Amino acid sequence: MANQKKMVEAITSRDEDFSRWYTDIVKKAELVDYSGVKGCMVIRPYGYAIWENIQRELDARFKATGHENVYMPMFIPESLLQKEKDHVEGFAPEVAWVTQGGDEKLTERLCVRPTSETLFCEHYAKIINSYRDLPKLYNQWCSVVRWEKTTRPFLRTSEFLWQEGHTMHETEEEAREETLRMLKVYEDFYRDVLAIPAVVGKKTEKEKFAGAVETYTIEPMMHNGVALQGGTSHYFGDGFARSFDIKFTGRDNTLQYPHQTSWGVSTRMIGAIIMVHGDDDGLVLPPKISPVQVVIVPIAQHKEGVLDKARELYGRLSDTYRTKLDDSDNSPGWKFSQYEMKGVPVRVEIGPKDIENGRCILVRRDNREKTVVALENLEEAVAKALQDIHDAMYASALKNLEEKTYTATTHEEFLDTAKNKPGFIKAMWCGETACEEQLKEETGGVKSRCIPFVEEHIADTCVCCGKPAKYQVFWGKQY
Amino acid sequence: MANQKKMVEAITSRDEDFSRWYTDIVKKAELVDYSGVKGCMVIRPYGYAIWENIQRELDARFKATGHENVYMPMFIPESLLQKEKDHVEGFAPEVAWVTQGGDEKLTERLCVRPTSETLFCEHYAKIINSYRDLPKLYNQWCSVVRWEKTTRPFLRTSEFLWQEGHTMHETEEEAREETLRMLKVYEDFYRDVLAIPAVVGKKTEKEKFAGAVETYTIEPMMHNGVALQGGTSHYFGDGFARSFDIKFTGRDNTLQYPHQTSWGVSTRMIGAIIMVHGDDDGLVLPPKISPVQVVIVPIAQHKEGVLDKARELYGRLSDTYRTKLDDSDNSPGWKFSQYEMKGVPVRVEIGPKDIENGRCILVRRDNREKTVVALENLEEAVAKALQDIHDAMYASALKNLEEKTYTATTHEEFLDTAKNKPGFIKAMWCGETACEEQLKEETGGVKSRCIPFVEEHIADTCVCCGKPAKYQVFWGKQY
Repeated sequence: MANQKKMVEAITSRDEDFSRWYTDIVKKAELVDYSGVKGCMVIRPYGYAIWENIQRELDARFKATGHENVYMPMFIPESLLQKEKDHVEGFAPEVAWVTQGGDEKLTERLCVRPTSETLFCEHYAKIINSYRDLPKLYNQWCSVVRWEKTTRPFLRTSEFLWQEGHTMHETEEEAREETLRMLKVYEDFYRDVLAIPAVVGKKTEKEKFAGAVETYTIEPMMHNGVALQGGTSHYFGDGFARSFDIKFTGRDNTLQYPHQTSWGVSTRMIGAIIMVHGDDDGLVLPPKISPVQVVIVPIAQHKEGVLDKARELYGRLSDTYRTKLDDSDNSPGWKFSQYEMKGVPVRVEIGPKDIENGRCILVRRDNREKTVVALENLEEAVAKALQDIHDAMYASALKNLEEKTYTATTHEEFLDTAKNKPGFIKAMWCGETACEEQLKEETGGVKSRCIPFVEEHIADTCVCCGKPAKYQVFWGKQY
Repeated sequence: MANQKKMVEAITSRDEDFSRWYTDIVKKAELVDYSGVKGCMVIRPYGYAIWENIQRELDARFKATGHENVYMPMFIPESLLQKEKDHVEGFAPEVAWVTQGGDEKLTERLCVRPTSETLFCEHYAKIINSYRDLPKLYNQWCSVVRWEKTTRPFLRTSEFLWQEGHTMHETEEEAREETLRMLKVYEDFYRDVLAIPAVVGKKTEKEKFAGAVETYTIEPMMHNGVALQGGTSHYFGDGFARSFDIKFTGRDNTLQYPHQTSWGVSTRMIGAIIMVHGDDDGLVLPPKISPVQVVIVPIAQHKEGVLDKARELYGRLSDTYRTKLDDSDNSPGWKFSQYEMKGVPVRVEIGPKDIENGRCILVRRDNREKTVVALENLEEAVAKALQDIHDAMYASALKNLEEKTYTATTHEEFLDTAKNKPGFIKAMWCGETACEEQLKEETGGVKSRCIPFVEEHIADTCVCCGKPAKYQVFWGKQY
């Protein structure tokens, strides 16, 4: 009973306090628990099941594009981290250091990997000798650590789970293709699996990854108008290869440096799912990654034949869909709230009257639409509902992204929009880091998100300094 | 060409130098690479693919027995590790300590998890309130760190990958059942998936896990007569629950401590696969976890029709089996050696004469048996071969285990067997730790492996001290 009460308790309204609403959901949908280590989270079964579904879908896409999984050590000796100058400068301030192993003080500190470029390079230096050894298309699923001062479950944690692809190529062209191919894999995955639209493009010099020549990014828009860096794909040129002395004999028999990429997405995506799709009743999960796709709730289940029929429906659906039959003694009303909080896409209600009439009730989580379904059409109705839900969730997220995308042609307009209208601002930029820094300071945190692949001509001059514009940039605050 | 040469180079003979033979295989079959961090290994694509297959098979078995996956932080604050006395004493000497995060010296050291009992308990204390919350059946796939002085790929590494199940139960009986259930899952998995027989039983007080009431173990026998602790399952009683103040309201409305288990297997299993099944030509992989189950090698592939036919066979097999068609320009002989080294269970050869005669050649890796197969029967022949290979590998491993199991009734016989006949020694024991220590010292490392579930009556007295015997023990050296 105590349990029941806890679950039907309302959560903070999304429009009232987005931040508390978010925290309420991660807690009440039982996605995470806080741990005794600051900034580290326990990912509970329901949260982890979402991650497992994400992993399965992404891993299949990585393998379909020719990648293989490997596992690198979790420790990086300080000297190895220091081999690439920009890289160490970017990461050293935020790593955890192991200084003691058992009873011995280590002669060299080891950092817990914040990312694994250096480890991959050390290995590649040993196994790449000839153009015949290329490309190397490796990926790794693991946890990484970045010592964060302010943390929030999924969005920014000192330890998080992710995948990091690290590839080596014979030519710059191939490596650049790979960088964009994997960005596209992310974009497709966000759209087709998570039902999340996003802006994609290139990071500015200031915002790119430590050690990269170019960083590409996918930037979905949260419901409250704050952006999220949803995944990145980097082209490294041969900078790391030179620092790590990775060389191969080319087709022309000369020694050459290979060209490198890396790309990654993390458990942060679960934060995006919550903030793009969730509502005042809790999670709304994209059908393709929902741990439970269909929940069957028997009505008046003590009446003869109800549970039998519910089980029959379960038997019909459970081979095709992740299906749950809740025959616990909690009330139907409690169950409705519970599975709404957990974001289960489709609910099937079946009671004595329904059975009499050879039907059941199908309820969509996203818009609460109820449909009466003839029992013989159940499989078909569920299939259609899951597809419709995905499409409607995508459309609604796209509408939010479009509505929260503004244009600013003047400095004043930019500052006004930044102050009053949370979302993306499309505006022109001269290409100077100074202007990015000024805008960030004036607006309390609006940064360049990316230069889109297809730039619009919004004005002739930089929205900050008024000098001739070189790029169109998407700007916005981020998590 | 350099590559070709490297691959056909012979490895050390197994009977000549087992240890070098092992190291040669892990290197030449491209399972691992050494890394710059002592005792940490790079698991290369072929090695990791074996691990992925192991994970998939085991994970399905864990889920079928009602378990859910979660993820706990990788760090344990020193004060948390210290909460259970026996546990901290067992692990503190072999953990890696993080003392610095970014630029700050930490006020409390964090250890990188050597195992996660303490983290699970901290979480369970928060979420277990009533008997209705029990059982909690959680599992975690992750990496753990134990600072080892001497290391060997897969067998003993400072970092390794594993799964750790941690469960909480209402009663002692249920927890004890779970402990044995999961040991049985391991035993079935070893037999049915890895084709490895093993002795199973209970660890002595001296050998049990730090903090456990009872530890059960599965002990396969390597080809050279050395045993391996292949997996353990622990019953904890309510010791941790008391230390961590985990209490629930029972059915009778009183506050009670739940009963706990944990169980784990690791990448060490890959070491067991190598040492149980491998031979002088390299790996011999159990068909169920082999990354490639069937390799098709075209003969005289430049001749018209050969590659087309090879592709046709690939098309027929690849939906059902992990199949590879090697149409590279390496010679067939090189390819044969290569896939023998990699332990691929079935090779299919197809050349112009075979095509003419509507047949192909099927070669088994385990015993090199060649069969001429009519092309129309290929699917059937492959299915049968894979099953036969599994069965034959199991039978051969069982024969080795049985042949290397000796009986000793007297102290002298024990020492003589320990010195001259590597393997298990079945002998009686009085139950005193002093005798275990004495035997270990006298034999240079023979330890009690386990007390089997069904004990044999071998003699009346302890093989060491001559006092009345209480148990029959399997003894042996271990990796």
